[in-house]
Amino acid sequence: MQSNPKISFIGLGNMGAPMALNLLKAGMQVCVFDLMPQAVAKLVEQGASGAASVLEVVKDADVVISMLPAGKHVEALYLGSEQHGGLISVLAKNCLVIDSSTIDAATAQKVGKALATQGLRFIDAPVSGGVGGATAGTLTFIVGGEQQDYQDALPVLQLMGKNIFHAGALGAGQVAKICNNMLLSVLMVGTSEALQLAIDNGLDPKVVSDIMLQSSGRNWTLELYNPCPDVMPNVPSSKAYQGGFMVDLMKKDLGLAMDTAVKSQSSTPMGSLAQSLYAMHSLQGNGQLDFSSIFSMFSKHSNKD
Amino acid sequence: MQSNPKISFIGLGNMGAPMALNLLKAGMQVCVFDLMPQAVAKLVEQGASGAASVLEVVKDADVVISMLPAGKHVEALYLGSEQHGGLISVLAKNCLVIDSSTIDAATAQKVGKALATQGLRFIDAPVSGGVGGATAGTLTFIVGGEQQDYQDALPVLQLMGKNIFHAGALGAGQVAKICNNMLLSVLMVGTSEALQLAIDNGLDPKVVSDIMLQSSGRNWTLELYNPCPDVMPNVPSSKAYQGGFMVDLMKKDLGLAMDTAVKSQSSTPMGSLAQSLYAMHSLQGNGQLDFSSIFSMFSKHSNKD
Amino acid sequence: MQSNPKISFIGLGNMGAPMALNLLKAGMQVCVFDLMPQAVAKLVEQGASGAASVLEVVKDADVVISMLPAGKHVEALYLGSEQHGGLISVLAKNCLVIDSSTIDAATAQKVGKALATQGLRFIDAPVSGGVGGATAGTLTFIVGGEQQDYQDALPVLQLMGKNIFHAGALGAGQVAKICNNMLLSVLMVGTSEALQLAIDNGLDPKVVSDIMLQSSGRNWTLELYNPCPDVMPNVPSSKAYQGGFMVDLMKKDLGLAMDTAVKSQSSTPMGSLAQSLYAMHSLQGNGQLDFSSIFSMFSKHSNKD
Amino acid sequence: MQSNPKISFIGLGNMGAPMALNLLKAGMQVCVFDLMPQAVAKLVEQGASGAASVLEVVKDADVVISMLPAGKHVEALYLGSEQHGGLISVLAKNCLVIDSSTIDAATAQKVGKALATQGLRFIDAPVSGGVGGATAGTLTFIVGGEQQDYQDALPVLQLMGKNIFHAGALGAGQVAKICNNMLLSVLMVGTSEALQLAIDNGLDPKVVSDIMLQSSGRNWTLELYNPCPDVMPNVPSSKAYQGGFMVDLMKKDLGLAMDTAVKSQSSTPMGSLAQSLYAMHSLQGNGQLDFSSIFSMFSKHSNKD
Repeated sequence: MQSNPKISFIGLGNMGAPMALNLLKAGMQVCVFDLMPQAVAKLVEQGASGAASVLEVVKDADVVISMLPAGKHVEALYLGSEQHGGLISVLAKNCLVIDSSTIDAATAQKVGKALATQGLRFIDAPVSGGVGGATAGTLTFIVGGEQQDYQDALPVLQLMGKNIFHAGALGAGQVAKICNNMLLSVLMVGTSEALQLAIDNGLDPKVVSDIMLQSSGRNWTLELYNPCPDVMPNVPSSKAYQGGFMVDLMKKDLGLAMDTAVKSQSSTPMGSLAQSLYAMHSLQGNGQLDFSSIFSMFSKHSNKD
Repeated sequence: MQSNPKISFIGLGNMGAPMALNLLKAGMQVCVFDLMPQAVAKLVEQGASGAASVLEVVKDADVVISMLPAGKHVEALYLGSEQHGGLISVLAKNCLVIDSSTIDAATAQKVGKALATQGLRFIDAPVSGGVGGATAGTLTFIVGGEQQDYQDALPVLQLMGKNIFHAGALGAGQVAKICNNMLLSVLMVGTSEALQLAIDNGLDPKVVSDIMLQSSGRNWTLELYNPCPDVMPNVPSSKAYQGGFMVDLMKKDLGLAMDTAVKSQSSTPMGSLAQSLYAMHSLQGNGQLDFSSIFSMFSKHSNKD
Repeated sequence: MQSNPKISFIGLGNMGAPMALNLLKAGMQVCVFDLMPQAVAKLVEQGASGAASVLEVVKDADVVISMLPAGKHVEALYLGSEQHGGLISVLAKNCLVIDSSTIDAATAQKVGKALATQGLRFIDAPVSGGVGGATAGTLTFIVGGEQQDYQDALPVLQLMGKNIFHAGALGAGQVAKICNNMLLSVLMVGTSEALQLAIDNGLDPKVVSDIMLQSSGRNWTLELYNPCPDVMPNVPSSKAYQGGFMVDLMKKDLGLAMDTAVKSQSSTPMGSLAQSLYAMHSLQGNGQLDFSSIFSMFSKHSNKD
Repeated sequence: MQSNPKISFIGLGNMGAPMALNLLKAGMQVCVFDLMPQAVAKLVEQGASGAASVLEVVKDADVVISMLPAGKHVEALYLGSEQHGGLISVLAKNCLVIDSSTIDAATAQKVGKALATQGLRFIDAPVSGGVGGATAGTLTFIVGGEQQDYQDALPVLQLMGKNIFHAGALGAGQVAKICNNMLLSVLMVGTSEALQLAIDNGLDPKVVSDIMLQSSGRNWTLELYNPCPDVMPNVPSSKAYQGGFMVDLMKKDLGLAMDTAVKSQSSTPMGSLAQSLYAMHSLQGNGQLDFSSIFSMFSKHSNKD
């Protein structure tokens, strides 16, 4: 990979825009595109070159980064939709494609294999860390793909993130991310109901949180993201569950986990239960709250009074 | 509390015997009793004085420690069973009773309140850490009871354990312990199914364990007790699930958790599911294995071939 | 059993009062007692003789029927509480005790065995059918106890109920009832989520209810108690979930089921999940609604708007 | 629809072959195709005309019936795979396509809409009733599609089945079938654990089955398919779980249910739990047994001894 590659960035939403901005701040040449011209304009103000189409944005690109909502958008971008051909037919040989969208592993594999037939390189590199991490440049990237492609992508990814993992072959980034997030949902629900059980029996949630944190119940949610209001400062539970990682985004990731489990014929009783509970929580009107708000399903009169 | 109290120790099983031994090693005066005379004899060899009955063992005791299998045994010991009166009518005023059995909070509260009517002091102080921790003197004690009683018990508990928590009022030790262990069971099942989902999709369990450990899926089981064979050395999963914390003991604790949740009308979907899965795992003949063996429920052909 | 036995009826609540009334209507001699004198007065107006205490009400009784809220009340009534002795010491030899309370099987067995030591006969005979069935005399009784005692109780039970089952030995009535009600809760939740899944995918709930009713999804709730509003006339779901069998009563029965399952070390994943969902539904303020209102947990915006 | 339409039948597996045979027995003209020439030969012996390709089998067809394993096969057959075009370009205008495969509703809708653009008619008509029903001509068909197409298909479907339902628009047949089968799985698991809970508490499974059958626990499995061995004659549970509806087929249907629920953002906690339990049961080596064998997960020592 050359020292100052030309980077095309496609998808300038809540996550994509600050990621692209961090590349600019690091002095990279970045050409950007989004279906919303306003989003492109904002990045151009910060020093990016802007493009009016996907065909234009990838011209002479050494690296293409995409950050899109779902698998169907990624597939359409690279392989073409019914209406028109995709980037597969226009990218330069040896171009390195980094898709940071969170999508199903099957689509990532399908796109990657198709691009490979044209001599193009593809890695799936979904992120975690949210808008905060994207802005601060501290995202976690979980990469699936060839070792050499991972090595080549590393210097670029390090401009946007702090922890960069190589999970395995093509699609493994997506699999590892949804396994992690499925487990996270289980930790969050399990911690919530354990805390509420303690409260219902007269214990102070701060005391029991502290005890479990130093015992075998220790987990990431107790360490950094306690779901019970007023146990921990500056976390969503102490700010009326505003900010953070939205219930509807967790629901999306759990949907991907269920699709993956059905395909691989895996049994995931805890993950499936978490998926049903998050779907129910969203149906009850809480989709825009932080995902730690699942705690309120277990407290008395959570939705009434 | 005087500097060298007379301690009575009742219940010299797998846990009680090494706990009493640690008191002896620290130079305390300990009188011991167990229904099995052999168990008493072994401690006497180590310097304890032995007693032939519960009435004899508590004579002149400043502190009574009990380590019994279930709530009914604790209730019978202190309050008396149908056949005979309990220790409540023989203990000296101001005697400090430390019950380290894992029992239901309701029984702990019943016993403690009854003893209080006779001027006796009672704390519930269940432990975690297993036989290993009991032997090494590194147990965790989670105490429920009055602050002064907790303070007075502390020097004695520190001879047997490393982390001593005060969870709250009478019974709170039991509640905090079962909340922690219920959460632990959820962490174990959730981690197992996430790891197997990754494996079923072609990932290396070591790699995905490492990624989740550094991400939001981090939890005690990934840190210290990975359930997938050969990811971590010297844990039960790498020793055919021998040793450690038995499935049937986890099942017992989850039963206590369910009793507690029903009484307090709490909703514990994850804990309840874990309870059903551990009950099923035990029914399939795995009750004597370490509780991380629940991993095998999710792997292919776990019980056949 | 003589042709016109003297019957004592203890507990004249929503269920007990109409049950006692049906005995009176059939021309039986009934002496009644309740802690609320008003409840006694109402039955006296209908021809009962009234008593001012439990000791008075059971004088010369051939048959004692009790209908109380929970196991602790039944145990205290017959075996005595801390304050005073129970009926065990005053009932006439060979008296037949019929307890129709819904309580845990263990308490039923404890009481029955204790009474047997004094030559007294005891059957557990919990009912289903609700206030409507109690009033109409169409209750279902599920009896545990000796065959002869069941035979002797039959003519009395038939004055209050339509279907009388002999489930087995002492306690079996309670076990069979909570097994049935646990299964009922699973049918109700399962049917609710299947109907909502169909609705969410554009189907008419009447059409899909009809199809499942004639297919392998057929169950009691689809036959008689469809939880989706406006599919079936004159059921609680078509009357804003008023009337019927309250969520909090189902929650109580599921609590008994969990206690039973923990004691017998049984695995009940579906029943446990139903218990958690009904507890959650009650926490959200729906405890007084009919239990088919669980359907609303699965429909969009059930608690908001 | 003319009185003696030319019928093409594609897919002569365990289900398709006896279905086609029933059409022949009723005197219909049937041309058949399968990838296995032997399967074609067998039907030709019974009076069918045989074809060597899908293009040949549909020549001059008034009605096309397909019975294939999964959605991808149906899509490839009608819309064409990467290698070659599908039937969409060769079928005669107004031809009525009946797909009786059990597939996801989304694929059924995609295929139906595409065929409609070419003036072709399509209904999804999945069946239940198994090989037994296919052979006896007593299948249940659940149809999605236009009312007129349903009417036109009815005389043909009635030659192969007994109950023919019109569930709604295109795809509704698939949705209704998977809702029914998801509910069936819940009935089966719930009934199994309720029966085992009764057995674990000393009750006779025949007695408790009879009680629940006449009470609010009544459901199709208790009526016709009791999962406990030796309660009911001539059902799979009394024949070592041979025959009937295989665990792996239920697992497939539950996978389709999960896909559907994720797509429509529905919450299906019971169905999801059943899916996880059936996946686990299959992992333990029971995929070829009848689906009522899930009962054995709840009985003691089910896999050991």
